[in-house]
Amino acid sequence: MAPAKYVYDFDEGDASLKKLLGGKGSNLAEMTRLGLPVPPGFTITTEACNYCYQEGKYPDGLQEEIEQHLQNLERKMGKKLGNPGDPLLVSVRSGAAISMPGMMDTVLNLGLNDQSVQGLASLTGDERFAYDAYRRFITMFSDIVMGVDREFYENELNRKKSELGIKLDVEMDATAWKELVSRFKEITLEHAGRDFPSDPREQLDLAIQAVFKSWDSDRAKTYRRQYDIPDDLGTAVNVQSMVFGNKGEDSATGVCFTRNPSTGEARRFGEYLTNAQGEDVVAGIRTPNTLEELGGEMSEPYEQLTQVMDKLEQHYRDMQDIEFTIEQGKLFMLQTRTGKRTAAAALKIAVDMVGEGLINEEEAVGRVQPEQLDQLLHPRLDPDAEYDVIARGLPASPGAAVGEVVFDADTAEMRGSRGENVILVRWETTPDDIHGIINAKGVLTSHGGMTSHAAVVARGMGKPCICGAEAINIQQAERIFEINGLVVREGETITIDGATGRVILGEVKLIEPKVDENLEKVLAWADKLRRLGVRTNADSPEDSQRARDFGAEGIGLCRIEHMLFGEERLPIVRRMILAESDEGREEALMELEPLLRRDFEGILEIMDGLPVTIRLLDPPLHEFLPSLGDLRVELEKLKHVPGERDELEAKERLLARVRAESEANPMLGLRGCRVGCTMGGVTEMQVRAIIKAACDLKKRGKDPRVEIMIPLVAFRKELEIERNKVVEVADGVIEAMQTDLEYLVGTMIELPRAALTADQIAELADFFSFGTNDLTQTTLGFSRDDAEAKFLTLYLEQGILADNPFETLDIEGVGKLVRMACELGRGTSPDIKLGICGEHGGDPRSIQFCHEVGLNYVSCSPFRVPLARLAAAHAAMGGASDATK
Amino acid sequence: MAPAKYVYDFDEGDASLKKLLGGKGSNLAEMTRLGLPVPPGFTITTEACNYCYQEGKYPDGLQEEIEQHLQNLERKMGKKLGNPGDPLLVSVRSGAAISMPGMMDTVLNLGLNDQSVQGLASLTGDERFAYDAYRRFITMFSDIVMGVDREFYENELNRKKSELGIKLDVEMDATAWKELVSRFKEITLEHAGRDFPSDPREQLDLAIQAVFKSWDSDRAKTYRRQYDIPDDLGTAVNVQSMVFGNKGEDSATGVCFTRNPSTGEARRFGEYLTNAQGEDVVAGIRTPNTLEELGGEMSEPYEQLTQVMDKLEQHYRDMQDIEFTIEQGKLFMLQTRTGKRTAAAALKIAVDMVGEGLINEEEAVGRVQPEQLDQLLHPRLDPDAEYDVIARGLPASPGAAVGEVVFDADTAEMRGSRGENVILVRWETTPDDIHGIINAKGVLTSHGGMTSHAAVVARGMGKPCICGAEAINIQQAERIFEINGLVVREGETITIDGATGRVILGEVKLIEPKVDENLEKVLAWADKLRRLGVRTNADSPEDSQRARDFGAEGIGLCRIEHMLFGEERLPIVRRMILAESDEGREEALMELEPLLRRDFEGILEIMDGLPVTIRLLDPPLHEFLPSLGDLRVELEKLKHVPGERDELEAKERLLARVRAESEANPMLGLRGCRVGCTMGGVTEMQVRAIIKAACDLKKRGKDPRVEIMIPLVAFRKELEIERNKVVEVADGVIEAMQTDLEYLVGTMIELPRAALTADQIAELADFFSFGTNDLTQTTLGFSRDDAEAKFLTLYLEQGILADNPFETLDIEGVGKLVRMACELGRGTSPDIKLGICGEHGGDPRSIQFCHEVGLNYVSCSPFRVPLARLAAAHAAMGGASDATK
Repeated sequence: MAPAKYVYDFDEGDASLKKLLGGKGSNLAEMTRLGLPVPPGFTITTEACNYCYQEGKYPDGLQEEIEQHLQNLERKMGKKLGNPGDPLLVSVRSGAAISMPGMMDTVLNLGLNDQSVQGLASLTGDERFAYDAYRRFITMFSDIVMGVDREFYENELNRKKSELGIKLDVEMDATAWKELVSRFKEITLEHAGRDFPSDPREQLDLAIQAVFKSWDSDRAKTYRRQYDIPDDLGTAVNVQSMVFGNKGEDSATGVCFTRNPSTGEARRFGEYLTNAQGEDVVAGIRTPNTLEELGGEMSEPYEQLTQVMDKLEQHYRDMQDIEFTIEQGKLFMLQTRTGKRTAAAALKIAVDMVGEGLINEEEAVGRVQPEQLDQLLHPRLDPDAEYDVIARGLPASPGAAVGEVVFDADTAEMRGSRGENVILVRWETTPDDIHGIINAKGVLTSHGGMTSHAAVVARGMGKPCICGAEAINIQQAERIFEINGLVVREGETITIDGATGRVILGEVKLIEPKVDENLEKVLAWADKLRRLGVRTNADSPEDSQRARDFGAEGIGLCRIEHMLFGEERLPIVRRMILAESDEGREEALMELEPLLRRDFEGILEIMDGLPVTIRLLDPPLHEFLPSLGDLRVELEKLKHVPGERDELEAKERLLARVRAESEANPMLGLRGCRVGCTMGGVTEMQVRAIIKAACDLKKRGKDPRVEIMIPLVAFRKELEIERNKVVEVADGVIEAMQTDLEYLVGTMIELPRAALTADQIAELADFFSFGTNDLTQTTLGFSRDDAEAKFLTLYLEQGILADNPFETLDIEGVGKLVRMACELGRGTSPDIKLGICGEHGGDPRSIQFCHEVGLNYVSCSPFRVPLARLAAAHAAMGGASDATK
Repeated sequence: MAPAKYVYDFDEGDASLKKLLGGKGSNLAEMTRLGLPVPPGFTITTEACNYCYQEGKYPDGLQEEIEQHLQNLERKMGKKLGNPGDPLLVSVRSGAAISMPGMMDTVLNLGLNDQSVQGLASLTGDERFAYDAYRRFITMFSDIVMGVDREFYENELNRKKSELGIKLDVEMDATAWKELVSRFKEITLEHAGRDFPSDPREQLDLAIQAVFKSWDSDRAKTYRRQYDIPDDLGTAVNVQSMVFGNKGEDSATGVCFTRNPSTGEARRFGEYLTNAQGEDVVAGIRTPNTLEELGGEMSEPYEQLTQVMDKLEQHYRDMQDIEFTIEQGKLFMLQTRTGKRTAAAALKIAVDMVGEGLINEEEAVGRVQPEQLDQLLHPRLDPDAEYDVIARGLPASPGAAVGEVVFDADTAEMRGSRGENVILVRWETTPDDIHGIINAKGVLTSHGGMTSHAAVVARGMGKPCICGAEAINIQQAERIFEINGLVVREGETITIDGATGRVILGEVKLIEPKVDENLEKVLAWADKLRRLGVRTNADSPEDSQRARDFGAEGIGLCRIEHMLFGEERLPIVRRMILAESDEGREEALMELEPLLRRDFEGILEIMDGLPVTIRLLDPPLHEFLPSLGDLRVELEKLKHVPGERDELEAKERLLARVRAESEANPMLGLRGCRVGCTMGGVTEMQVRAIIKAACDLKKRGKDPRVEIMIPLVAFRKELEIERNKVVEVADGVIEAMQTDLEYLVGTMIELPRAALTADQIAELADFFSFGTNDLTQTTLGFSRDDAEAKFLTLYLEQGILADNPFETLDIEGVGKLVRMACELGRGTSPDIKLGICGEHGGDPRSIQFCHEVGLNYVSCSPFRVPLARLAAAHAAMGGASDATK
């Protein structure tokens, strides 16, 4: 076996060696290979890092290889590292295959010491430049390699400046820098317990070891664990000869993009600073010039740069983010990588590049990140606007809205229906507030979590909502809310950003969403690639239409309960629940039936020819009732009002009934199929309404495709009882209406027991739909509302959780159950239809999982349908693209 | 292949053919084989039944075999079935291998018709006897075989008696019976739509078919599904020549046991009726004589019977339950089977039989049912007492108690501490009531389920408790409760039976529990057989002592929260929770530490040398706080009291804090290790208290074996954080106290995710303890309180559930997770200790499962320790015994 090779000269590698040389190193090698002006250097491989990580020492031969490559470099440059007369200076930078916070940053100007700094000064004829470089080096090296806090040096610099009565670094002269350099070395000695190393060779060794050690840092390890990056990926180390953009007015340093990363426009874009080093651009003290201006200032290197940019984009076949330095009129390339971009830019670039013949359609699809689309499909804050955030809450429903504060639903309805923009602000909302929510532009609550009433209703309506903004203290009686002393009155304008949970005083300009041509093209290409179907969660004709416009291929979840919260319906539902006789209940059910039937007809007509999965009533019934606590308080109040005997008695009766319905843990209580199994008539009414609506359409020549879904099944027998009821009622209606409607009956898999016994349950189910919201709650033992209000944030901060499991499916736990259920279900019934209707159906990483386990479709809210189409294509292409890595 | 044999003469079979001939048939054959006087007959096999069940028709050859065996029987008896002159009469009875309700009962006197009844009359010279037999036959046959309700015949009989002005059946003469017979046949024609069959051969065929069909009845199928009896077990049919115990004063019929089934006393025991048929004994109209009296009345058959009884017991090596008939001085044996017995009898018989050399110790252990022991280990109602049950609730904590009704905890404490017997009656209890519960004999609530506060606390204390007795309407202000108009005042005496949930007005005599000599012997034998360890759930020195006395081999679950509900402690706990600064919380924690330390020292000392698993604080913190709803009402009340400004403000602050702690689904909220992970100091304080207590003991030369258990882990990282804390604090204390204490750190597996990822969690756990209460709640999505109050009863009635999953482990669902977790955990850590501490640890069928999956121990309440020891032995012996089948 040939001895391992641990060090590559830039002219030995290429872009294909990304894993071995890291992103930075492989691209430097590739640019060198392309003949571009890259300052020479070499890369120590990730394998060397891995060896050090595992064995705690350099592999055999590494030291010698470094020595050899350094000599090589010195020969090439005609200089020696830290030579007192004409020193070779180098930068040392880490570079893993995946960019990773926690890894060692850059050390510039390595090779300087008390001797070589003089060589640099005399060579450049610029003592100030040389000592400025030296003090920068001492600061960086001490901070990054020797672990001395940068702040000590900054403080010393500031002390010096105030001593000299100056304000800007540029005002510091050579003498001042020189004095500071010796002070800096004292600081290092004091805090690191050793002298600043003056031997350039030792400096280099220590810097390389620091890069390797940073792979083992807690921050890097935590990051890797969270993002599932293997520990044996390792980082490379790049040692590169320095070039200086701060060697006078013919020198410059800058960053440029081959296309506009913000709009995607096919024009070069960039910024630079004359007479500056890289870190000055980042520090943002001086305002950089635009790339165009460089043409006027230094036309030759500019011409050369534009050619390099074009060449790199053509070569990499993607928009490039490039670092360059011009040293005394000569252009050097320091880095190139695929550029990050906004959603709009990603779409435009992808479509343009297909048009230019640079990439094909599949590549174009891979270049757009599904997560990014979310920002395009809701109104959002103008990114150029300035504003003050007065409070933060949970980002319960995305989109931004501007309106005047109102504190009750009636006012919201009154003013909203007149066309005024209002934001409904409540402690929390109840079904009684529904008419207010409908007529408001957005909802803000100080209480409740991501599945609180306000959140669920607002998401369903695609309306912005912030929940649980606990800093907001609502004083309903005074019609104000107060945040740390700031008082906001009814009628004042606020802006809410439901995507981030920010509450803003005053009006912020909003940007309206649109599905533009580029998005349509990319989605059409995505549709050709994906295997997963994409349906939507919709409970109204309006939502159904919107989802179909966004490309939904049916409804995966239509929630009957959402149809019952309406202002005229709620009282009927309450009568149904509180009925003291079967007749009373039947009467209320009879009233509800035609109302639901009308809704179903509307939805099924819009979804003509596409499957519509309708879930029977799911929530605990007391969600439809007034709050027990409120009732008790009202009753106590009434006792102190003379002469309200009748009302008091009525309230007492109501209280007794509400108390009887109340539950300790409603999420795990009498809900879902348990209601159907124990309360006669409820399932039957729903099925009649659905099937009659479908038969009506069938008679009108339409093609309704009904799938009736039974929720919260834990036992085969529950499904048997409910399925039998559904079939009996449905077949009766179909016969009576003389049609030949076909329909499916299936179940949610949303309890661990259902997943564990899916083989038995599949005997009676035409389809499974994974209700991963509830499945997550029960598998993890997390009540979503409580977890999000109480400990989820802390859990994410502490790294107990890498992601919010209600947003991204917990693949190790919940995913294991989903996988089991798929296998068990298909074992019983190979053709069983499998889908997902939890909110994970709109999350790209979860969609990837759904693809892998072989689901037939995902279902998500209308606004996320485009995102899901794209994510499904990515999944089919073998995982997320690396466009933005 | 030889043709199948579907019919066996009694002299062809034996007891080993139970599966083929059923229990009744195989024992009849065995008795025949032993030469006992069994009326001849034959058995149609269960295989014939199975064939009919599956194919819907008789197997080939069955008809011929029946014919042949009938001829055989006729030859043997010298009579022909239904012969007009001297008829052979037979009984037809079903008999499966397992006794099963829903199966066809007995048809006696088959073969009678208008002709043969006359033959019977002239042959016996007793026309009245003959027509009485005939009318009995018509009734039974019409009811059981032809499906005509028995009531029609009873009504007609009553009509006839009142017409004749007589009261008793024995007053009916031959003419009266004769008239009734023809009327009976009309009733059959009217309701069955066909004539009563007069052909004896047809009667026999119809009866056999009726037995087969009854295997297919809904009731039988439901029973089989519930008890997991395979459908292809089948039932046999026994056709036996009739003998008559009602042929005069030298005839009799009776039932006897070889030992006393109630006390176990080794003396023959039985009852008989002179001049009667079997059904008369059952009907209970005449008072039967004791077996001893038979010796005086009919000495010869009596002598013969006692010999047969002795022979059968010796032969079967178990107490026998025997049916016999004496026809005109001649003894006939009609059935023998293993006799059912009380717990006390089972123990005595088992121990006696070992003493007699009849069975060995292992067999003795197998003869006692673990479930039965429960009745022995709590005070119970005197079975001979008479009483009226005025209400029923959930059997929340077993045992019976008598006491005067009190409606609040203070009164309970005041009167109870004076030595008076009181029962605390509340809507539901809260931690504020704890001093009342301690001082009451028992607790009765009108609200709450099996895990409500009252239930949990009472079970822990081994105190009788009934929860959720909803018929009870408590009027606290009037200090009464009312049940359907019956008013019970404070101070009136009631008796509650926590084992059955019965509430009784007045005092019922109670029987105190004791661990007698027989139980001790059987348990000592059981201990030699079992492989599972048996620990206890105990939270106090008293419980620990009781459990150790009952043979517990350590503590599997010591719940810290139960130590915090005490009257002096609760206020400190509240201060800890409501503290607005870290200092405030730390101060409260410091106060709690010595109190807990004292408790731990007591418990560890009693359990010296045995492992004690202590679980860190588990419940949601607001369980320690006042109720949000109550507070709101109190606040509203205060608003109407002038001049209570300060109190009002204090209450308002408290309300705000309680509201902030309140949760939508506390079971799935901020509890278990989530509290430790997010609230500093709480875990640390508990560990200090535990380890200091253990070190104190260690210094005193004791051997404390501490196992610290971290609850509600879902993620490996949670365990990592908490385990690190435990180890750091514990090692610090051990070092400071200069001892060499060893301890274990493990976790509960009580969430599906923990089970699914047990391989990861096992990396950090010295032991797993399955918390199957919570695991059942999350796996099934059943909040125990809500399920038991709302739908569990209906689910059991509808057969959706075969058992209450909180009593008997749901093996298909929850058990699958337990099994997975065992395999995954052992995969990571082969020697990991595995136990169970949910209430299932005291349930025999669940213990069987625990044995099968290879747990190291079960843990249960002190009172169930003996039961668990026995059940563990049964499990090791390969399943439940069949002693009482």
